[in-house]
Amino acid sequence: MTTIAIVGGTGHHGRALARRFASAGLAVIVGSRDPQRARAAVAAWPARGSIDVADNVTAVEHSDVIVLAVPFASVDVVLTDLHAHLRGDSVMIDVTVPVTFTGGKMAMAEPAEGSAAEHIRSRLPDRVHLAAAFKTLPAHLLEAAGEPLDCDEFVCADSETARRRAIALVELLPGVRPVDIGPLSGARFIEHATALAIAINRRHKVDAARFRVVGLA
Amino acid sequence: MTTIAIVGGTGHHGRALARRFASAGLAVIVGSRDPQRARAAVAAWPARGSIDVADNVTAVEHSDVIVLAVPFASVDVVLTDLHAHLRGDSVMIDVTVPVTFTGGKMAMAEPAEGSAAEHIRSRLPDRVHLAAAFKTLPAHLLEAAGEPLDCDEFVCADSETARRRAIALVELLPGVRPVDIGPLSGARFIEHATALAIAINRRHKVDAARFRVVGLA
Repeated sequence: MTTIAIVGGTGHHGRALARRFASAGLAVIVGSRDPQRARAAVAAWPARGSIDVADNVTAVEHSDVIVLAVPFASVDVVLTDLHAHLRGDSVMIDVTVPVTFTGGKMAMAEPAEGSAAEHIRSRLPDRVHLAAAFKTLPAHLLEAAGEPLDCDEFVCADSETARRRAIALVELLPGVRPVDIGPLSGARFIEHATALAIAINRRHKVDAARFRVVGLA
Repeated sequence: MTTIAIVGGTGHHGRALARRFASAGLAVIVGSRDPQRARAAVAAWPARGSIDVADNVTAVEHSDVIVLAVPFASVDVVLTDLHAHLRGDSVMIDVTVPVTFTGGKMAMAEPAEGSAAEHIRSRLPDRVHLAAAFKTLPAHLLEAAGEPLDCDEFVCADSETARRRAIALVELLPGVRPVDIGPLSGARFIEHATALAIAINRRHKVDAARFRVVGLA
């Protein structure tokens, strides 16, 4: 069975993915900087599949795939903690979105590397395989088990290993089609697509705007 | 009858819009820096509706709506030429995409203002009403009259006048739903969505990737 660590697994986005992956039959380890609080949080979730809790380092060391779901502002600290514990065959899926809300106004964090994914790449050991995915799916829709997702989810990577893993994970979600968009540098387009969806939500007072690509057989 | 000037109307994108708007019953003036060559080009188009040709200044002075369809690299020069000729009630629709291709590699131009639309805004007299639209529709699909478009097209503006005009123009295209995404600053999200569509085209060897928003009634 694939074991997947969700680093930042008690946040909104991480929690939603943890529950979806556990429902799909993966062994999930929710990683947290505060495992005691995380254990209490996870205990309150509706029971479904295999979900364990650990500190981030333990979660990463015992997993086949690592999902990085911490707030973008915490990325540097968390990666510094994890750095020595990432193996040569580690596969990481970055799901972060560098969007901030200040006084109700949305803004992109604009990392110097061009995207959150490329920022993360620059802080990982070379040997780690990185893909970006799950950036545009609305978290609260992900969390509503049973709600039809009915959309596409964009994946990009420079590593073929990570790309394949990310695509396989997207395929676990019912009604979601993975759309590979090429190299990791495309993450900047994906992250802006998330901001586009948020802008649409705000403008139209809806809460789950997402995308289907037309013109792709 | 609404008269629409397409500044840069002999380029791929401008030409496609000119023909669609003429088909829809608008009076179109193709604006060009070289009206003589433009006249020869337009004469070769399949005849359909009312399409006139003029230099950019004349086109702008005789129109109700101005579509700015020049390459992003030409924006500054063209706007300098037009500056004195824009009236207080002028409505401009920016359709430019700040994407460049160097040695086959796609890159965003990254204007300091955050988007091509905001760059253009900063170079227009305050009195001009500006909206951004028609940035994600694939030009060659637009040009293929009869081809179903079947997608959404994003609109943003700070001016309500320009927003309404842009939405009405999008509604002229069969199978296209206008999606208002809010203020002009959202143009950066739209322009990255165009780059996302281009990345998908390249990765999947297709040529008309475009978007539908799911979750919007």
